[in-house]
Amino acid sequence: MPTTTIGVLTAGGDCPGLNAVIRAVAKPLLHEGFRVVGIEDGFRGLIEDRTRPLGVDEVSGILAQGGTILGSCNKSNPRRFATGLNPDGSPRIEDVTGRCVATAERHGIDALIVIGGDGSMSCACELREGFAARGRELRLVGVPKTIDNDLWGTEVTFGFQTAVATAAGALDRVRTTAESHHRAMVVEVMGRNAGWIALHAGLAGGAEVILIPEIPFDLDVVARVVKERAGRGRRYSMIGVSEGARPIGGAKIVAKVDPTSPDPIRLGGVGKFVADEIERRSGVESRYVVLGHLQRGGTPEAFDRVLATAFGHHAAGLVASGRWGRVAVMSGGRVTDIPIEDTASRQRLVPIDDPTIAAARAVYTSFGVA
Amino acid sequence: MPTTTIGVLTAGGDCPGLNAVIRAVAKPLLHEGFRVVGIEDGFRGLIEDRTRPLGVDEVSGILAQGGTILGSCNKSNPRRFATGLNPDGSPRIEDVTGRCVATAERHGIDALIVIGGDGSMSCACELREGFAARGRELRLVGVPKTIDNDLWGTEVTFGFQTAVATAAGALDRVRTTAESHHRAMVVEVMGRNAGWIALHAGLAGGAEVILIPEIPFDLDVVARVVKERAGRGRRYSMIGVSEGARPIGGAKIVAKVDPTSPDPIRLGGVGKFVADEIERRSGVESRYVVLGHLQRGGTPEAFDRVLATAFGHHAAGLVASGRWGRVAVMSGGRVTDIPIEDTASRQRLVPIDDPTIAAARAVYTSFGVA
Amino acid sequence: MPTTTIGVLTAGGDCPGLNAVIRAVAKPLLHEGFRVVGIEDGFRGLIEDRTRPLGVDEVSGILAQGGTILGSCNKSNPRRFATGLNPDGSPRIEDVTGRCVATAERHGIDALIVIGGDGSMSCACELREGFAARGRELRLVGVPKTIDNDLWGTEVTFGFQTAVATAAGALDRVRTTAESHHRAMVVEVMGRNAGWIALHAGLAGGAEVILIPEIPFDLDVVARVVKERAGRGRRYSMIGVSEGARPIGGAKIVAKVDPTSPDPIRLGGVGKFVADEIERRSGVESRYVVLGHLQRGGTPEAFDRVLATAFGHHAAGLVASGRWGRVAVMSGGRVTDIPIEDTASRQRLVPIDDPTIAAARAVYTSFGVA
Amino acid sequence: MPTTTIGVLTAGGDCPGLNAVIRAVAKPLLHEGFRVVGIEDGFRGLIEDRTRPLGVDEVSGILAQGGTILGSCNKSNPRRFATGLNPDGSPRIEDVTGRCVATAERHGIDALIVIGGDGSMSCACELREGFAARGRELRLVGVPKTIDNDLWGTEVTFGFQTAVATAAGALDRVRTTAESHHRAMVVEVMGRNAGWIALHAGLAGGAEVILIPEIPFDLDVVARVVKERAGRGRRYSMIGVSEGARPIGGAKIVAKVDPTSPDPIRLGGVGKFVADEIERRSGVESRYVVLGHLQRGGTPEAFDRVLATAFGHHAAGLVASGRWGRVAVMSGGRVTDIPIEDTASRQRLVPIDDPTIAAARAVYTSFGVA
Repeated sequence: MPTTTIGVLTAGGDCPGLNAVIRAVAKPLLHEGFRVVGIEDGFRGLIEDRTRPLGVDEVSGILAQGGTILGSCNKSNPRRFATGLNPDGSPRIEDVTGRCVATAERHGIDALIVIGGDGSMSCACELREGFAARGRELRLVGVPKTIDNDLWGTEVTFGFQTAVATAAGALDRVRTTAESHHRAMVVEVMGRNAGWIALHAGLAGGAEVILIPEIPFDLDVVARVVKERAGRGRRYSMIGVSEGARPIGGAKIVAKVDPTSPDPIRLGGVGKFVADEIERRSGVESRYVVLGHLQRGGTPEAFDRVLATAFGHHAAGLVASGRWGRVAVMSGGRVTDIPIEDTASRQRLVPIDDPTIAAARAVYTSFGVA
Repeated sequence: MPTTTIGVLTAGGDCPGLNAVIRAVAKPLLHEGFRVVGIEDGFRGLIEDRTRPLGVDEVSGILAQGGTILGSCNKSNPRRFATGLNPDGSPRIEDVTGRCVATAERHGIDALIVIGGDGSMSCACELREGFAARGRELRLVGVPKTIDNDLWGTEVTFGFQTAVATAAGALDRVRTTAESHHRAMVVEVMGRNAGWIALHAGLAGGAEVILIPEIPFDLDVVARVVKERAGRGRRYSMIGVSEGARPIGGAKIVAKVDPTSPDPIRLGGVGKFVADEIERRSGVESRYVVLGHLQRGGTPEAFDRVLATAFGHHAAGLVASGRWGRVAVMSGGRVTDIPIEDTASRQRLVPIDDPTIAAARAVYTSFGVA
Repeated sequence: MPTTTIGVLTAGGDCPGLNAVIRAVAKPLLHEGFRVVGIEDGFRGLIEDRTRPLGVDEVSGILAQGGTILGSCNKSNPRRFATGLNPDGSPRIEDVTGRCVATAERHGIDALIVIGGDGSMSCACELREGFAARGRELRLVGVPKTIDNDLWGTEVTFGFQTAVATAAGALDRVRTTAESHHRAMVVEVMGRNAGWIALHAGLAGGAEVILIPEIPFDLDVVARVVKERAGRGRRYSMIGVSEGARPIGGAKIVAKVDPTSPDPIRLGGVGKFVADEIERRSGVESRYVVLGHLQRGGTPEAFDRVLATAFGHHAAGLVASGRWGRVAVMSGGRVTDIPIEDTASRQRLVPIDDPTIAAARAVYTSFGVA
Repeated sequence: MPTTTIGVLTAGGDCPGLNAVIRAVAKPLLHEGFRVVGIEDGFRGLIEDRTRPLGVDEVSGILAQGGTILGSCNKSNPRRFATGLNPDGSPRIEDVTGRCVATAERHGIDALIVIGGDGSMSCACELREGFAARGRELRLVGVPKTIDNDLWGTEVTFGFQTAVATAAGALDRVRTTAESHHRAMVVEVMGRNAGWIALHAGLAGGAEVILIPEIPFDLDVVARVVKERAGRGRRYSMIGVSEGARPIGGAKIVAKVDPTSPDPIRLGGVGKFVADEIERRSGVESRYVVLGHLQRGGTPEAFDRVLATAFGHHAAGLVASGRWGRVAVMSGGRVTDIPIEDTASRQRLVPIDDPTIAAARAVYTSFGVA
């Protein structure tokens, strides 16, 4: 077999375990004689021809490092890439698939491993069409990546347990202040559309109330839980809330916002909103913390190192056996694979009958509904 | 329904997450009107009539506590209980099932939730027979507990991930010394018969060599890995080893032992043996650490808090629906249940074709075999 | 000696190590025959007659617990206590010293140990005057408490190292995202007037820029550091900033604030301001995290457990030897004591020539000045 | 000024914070125009001419790394170096100072920064004499390094707080097992001659008994503490013990040892001995853990990163100002310096009247004496 060259890229928001995947993809491929090329900053590196070879030295010792040695990028769909400004000052959006084809040909890249979320998988599928339209084949293998654990087709994604551990640890920490000052403390965690982190961290952190996007909440119910606890001598409450949670009938939380801000949710988002409303409705002093980027960073937990290695190893196997267009997933407790299209642009929300929700309710957690 | 009383006990070695199970068992049962009685120190409390009522206050705030608020005991099978000494000084072993029946009747205990390992489940089944022989029914529900993750019938047990995290953290720590002093460092972890902890922690901790009971190892191969790495400029190696690992053709490690010691394995166990032999065969300076009890203790990781809660909640559901003689398990990624007999006295070893073994090999981990 | 009764209270914001102090105060006093009474929620418990006896059982096992078992309160100066509302709806402020005298007499409290910050010490001194005006003596001993490490008269306060560890850990975590996405990441830490946490955590976390209240910063200098690093291929920067830091010539950060918010600084405080301005001036994408309450909570680090125990033990010695009106402090590396007045209402800011500032500069940390 | 070249080496056992020192020494020296050369594996690199230049890139990003990027070596005194074997098989010991002189001259090394313990400082002083005997000057600056905190002349050394944190964390962990199984748990920590780690970690970890080399212990007293606690319903005890602790009138612990072992203390050392004797004398089941290398490794705590940086920065200042023959130390709470001879081959033991001992006793810690 002539040496085959495999490109690897990481796209979208970073997540603990990315380097573990890169390592687990590269080592077996190198061992079997493939050449492995790292593409920098996601699809942007493909567009801008920024690549570097990955040998054993480059991927050794990175297992426990957070982030991605390849860099990443949130906004770089080659089909709709901002190449500059139009005369009227608006961004000039172009299809730069041709540049990607050129990069791939220049480096002899025969296949591409995309480590990314639903948007990145969708982007990869579009790019594959763009290659096809130019008479080229883009052979793809995917590894699912989302810290929110909401990717369609897989029961779990790497990085999620690390985020849960961070968020549960924050609840543990903040509780001592809640107890000492008889407060309600709100901890806002990641999850724009799916409440997995809030649900698992809230359960692990013993939150009295968990608010997730899938279950619109009733602020009067939340306030009543806090007040009733105080009445029983439990003069504090812990509330875990997904950044995307919202009240029944409510829109995104925009009530108290600087209108000049480009980022209306983050500036006084749902965490602040819930804390303010609890205090107003229950009379119990309330405070909030927004974990934000703390959840993405740092060294992956052991669980995620193992899971990311298993996913990367499976993806390498897909490449070695030429099973293109597939994504490594966890299904029925085992690592397997599904078509890449199945994960693109779809999300796995928390189902209302999820057993973790039932377990949380059974230990007296409120979801803010009557 | 007249109030029904449910006894709860924790048996065998302690494990992070026991309190989370007790809480998740008790809260829903209390909510549904059951009375819950904690039995102290495993089956011993049943024999010696040491119990205490568990109300909401007793099981609140214990989710993140290590150990068990009920206490545990390693050796207290009521069918073969040491009640004292015979005239010749040997222990007098008796069947004290009658005492257990009396305790159960005195407190009106209608059913028993046993949180324990294979030995405890076996013990519970024997006790049930003893009750039956006395014309009594012992209604049982089980929650599997083994830090070694080797219980038959469940894909995972709570406490295991916490032990893995501890052991992987130890590998992370010790590596810096290995690198600075150009040594081989051996970390001995738990696992008398099954290598799950060594396998997962070794993979997560990036061990170059993992030695588990299921794969007898060749010391020459181990020494060669260490030496070859040094030859390539990697002047250190990390070795993770299960306490029950042994060389090909070898018995338990008893080579260098104080004959007067009652505990021949622990005093210079496999960790020391492997370190000594690596140094002797490779010339690379070697040291070892035995993690021992560090792996059992401390607060459970978020993963184990959620898992233990899910197991406890499922067990409460078995009780509430009168599905006796069953144990909560994880199967196909979901919490379900199987007959208690299926988990009694059987162990789930690491299969040779386990995908984690394959993943570890793919990232260049040696299992000490050619 | 007739049994003497000592009251203990914790006042102001909570801080890791408070329980260690309570334990270290109570155990030796109990051993020497004193009666110890815990006063709940700071001075508020003295006003509202909420106390409870502290025996060995109450203070055992609390060493590693965050928060305070006695509860605390931020706003409860007996000389200016809000007892209700005036007819016009404004708070009715009264001197309730008489109630405190009554509580003290009812429980036979002969002396008071105040664990609190400069405000609480000042409050205690005022209360002592109020007692004196009523012909009573209020015998005081103090233990300094401020997570900000800015109490006058002591080189270090307990809780500070735990806050530094939390903040340095946050920098460690967030750096991986900064590197992966080539961003400037701003971490806002506590410190309204003094920059100790930002200085130590920033140095420990390897921040490229540290902004503290004592050194007004120049945003152009900050942006230039970020830009120059990017130019040298270091495409990320970490910035640690005290909540009270401000630009040269600038007032408190109120630029981008919801005018309806009661809390203008926290809603888009200095962290957001600095991140926005770095991005605007340097073109490098910037994000921020506000640690807030995460720094107060959780179990104290070993250092703070030892320090809090040493302070508590010293305070117990002051009581036992009748050395009233003094506060335990660290001076010249040793625990000793000074008059309580010396710590009241004074703050210890970071001096410009602090050796930690010099050390940080020597390893290339910018303080945002030319 | 012509460029001056400064050699840097790390000698003796590794310790968290070594890299922080290397960074804090190199950065300011490089900034002031010095050339900095790293010498590999302690004095061995000087003997064997293994060096490498240290630029800003080499010392960036190493602050939080455990170990030493330069490598270290325990046994490599140039005055008594094992160069091979004599005809009779014994090691051939030679004075290889001449090789060190040659290395220094080859690289133009004008001064040497030694980061090491009392033995290494002593070795450096001897080497300086050896240089002098050859008509050369060896200009020295030292940075004290000992994880045991027992170096003469400094109140604290970096790495110590990290070791204390690790050991206190181990006590926290193991306590849950002690409580669940009603055991005495012995945790053996480092400290051959000085009990600092056991003292601070024992106090921070709430050990009921702390055994240190400076206070020979009485096993009957230790057993009585354990038994009395059990009698009061506290059915467990935690014991922290320095590896060098010994009973009154006793020699090093060699009672139960494999005579063929080259390492009689470690194989069934004092931890095992104490656990065995407690069980035998009190009847309370006892277990032990030996922390060993876990205490040396891993990332330094924030405290040690700051301290190591301050020490390194001070050492760089000594070099820059030509103040040779001095060691950076902490004295009276400030970083300053003393003559290198003062720290060589002397140890700072825990004084019997140490305030931490008094504080520990006040919270009911036994030191195993009546």
